[in-house]
Amino acid sequence: MIDYNNPAVRYYQQVSDECIHYLSIDGVIFGFHQNQLNVLLLRWKGTNEWSLPGGFIKKKESVDEAAQRVMQERTGLDKLYLQQFHVFGEATRYDQEETWRKTTIPLQHIKWSERTISLGYYALVEHSKVVPSPDFLTDECRWWPLNEIPSLLFDHNHIIDVAIQSLRKQLTDQPISHLLPETFTIPELQRLHETILGYPLDARNFYKKVMASGTLERLSERRAGTPHKAPYLYRFAGTGHDAVG
Amino acid sequence: MIDYNNPAVRYYQQVSDECIHYLSIDGVIFGFHQNQLNVLLLRWKGTNEWSLPGGFIKKKESVDEAAQRVMQERTGLDKLYLQQFHVFGEATRYDQEETWRKTTIPLQHIKWSERTISLGYYALVEHSKVVPSPDFLTDECRWWPLNEIPSLLFDHNHIIDVAIQSLRKQLTDQPISHLLPETFTIPELQRLHETILGYPLDARNFYKKVMASGTLERLSERRAGTPHKAPYLYRFAGTGHDAVG
Repeated sequence: MIDYNNPAVRYYQQVSDECIHYLSIDGVIFGFHQNQLNVLLLRWKGTNEWSLPGGFIKKKESVDEAAQRVMQERTGLDKLYLQQFHVFGEATRYDQEETWRKTTIPLQHIKWSERTISLGYYALVEHSKVVPSPDFLTDECRWWPLNEIPSLLFDHNHIIDVAIQSLRKQLTDQPISHLLPETFTIPELQRLHETILGYPLDARNFYKKVMASGTLERLSERRAGTPHKAPYLYRFAGTGHDAVG
Repeated sequence: MIDYNNPAVRYYQQVSDECIHYLSIDGVIFGFHQNQLNVLLLRWKGTNEWSLPGGFIKKKESVDEAAQRVMQERTGLDKLYLQQFHVFGEATRYDQEETWRKTTIPLQHIKWSERTISLGYYALVEHSKVVPSPDFLTDECRWWPLNEIPSLLFDHNHIIDVAIQSLRKQLTDQPISHLLPETFTIPELQRLHETILGYPLDARNFYKKVMASGTLERLSERRAGTPHKAPYLYRFAGTGHDAVG
């Protein structure tokens, strides 16, 4: 029996009718305050269980529009800077039964897909501009400093970890190294940058910039077979690339 | 009438039975060769129509596994460096009817979802190591230099454009600027980097590195109300952030 008097049940029935099955959106909303990264979390109605903000994609809505809608409702901000950072697509992401028991919502009779692939978006916002607002399923919405986040519903602790890793990579990663052989010269690296960017770079500035990045290691060998003074070979210093899958 | 003698029709029927509806994977496989970026494309059977490699996610397979499987089959390489770069989730991405007519596959009677959300992955590979191989629906698989790519099936020219933009952003973007007020001091920027990275940075090296990046603009004002010599204020020079949606 489906209890249609329960508003949460009615909400999920509506989602099942109007939204794309198998897919959800989860949002990691980051703010920087008092030298700490903070994340916006929601406390589920009548419980002490917390989760990230999230939602579903309507059948005729783009996924980016759905993400903007969900995050806008939680923050009061429009035109948020959002970044899709990862698709959480493991065949089994978390224990569905245990999770729904914790939320106290009687969902066992709702028709829903046997797995949900979540599109992870992070939002980068100015902390002071946000007005946190709970949604239909939750009592409270507030900032949590990153190092005090409790054990969350679903796989949301993992999702936050991946969001942070993704921010870190923006600062440190050199994925284009995968396009090069293990060793290369600075002019070769410059040509790759120019090809990706679509415009020429000044050789002197390029050299200064890549040296300052601290990511290159100069080898003792030089490139053989070049007509002029042979250029040194370089390689990327242990940048720890992760292949997916 | 569904023509089950047509192998392509049988293939799509199998996909409809075994894979997750509404979702697909498209792969932009980049190689760098003779100072040019190249992309691997497939020519559809009996036509002169080209597309990116792609595929679908089996009901019990993770999305990353599905992407590895698809790209491995086209390149002969395993453990590819793959990056999810964008989810193509517009409600209408391309003209379905026109596209299927061009492929000459009689798909009008296959039960399939009215829209497909595509998970875009790029692969960065060493050009010389790839052995291009066509798939079940195609006659030919080969490298195309980026500036010679023809008009492709589906929205695949757009997908390649977004993949390039995503590579460019890796080289130039400063998304963390969204976490800061418009103006800030270098020590404040350093604290943000340290918070994201989770470890302290040397102030002298940090200063050299961010200055060499060419992304900061120093203002004539200084931070007021600081006990010692007031530090200069900076802002990010026109980095052209795009909000999503």
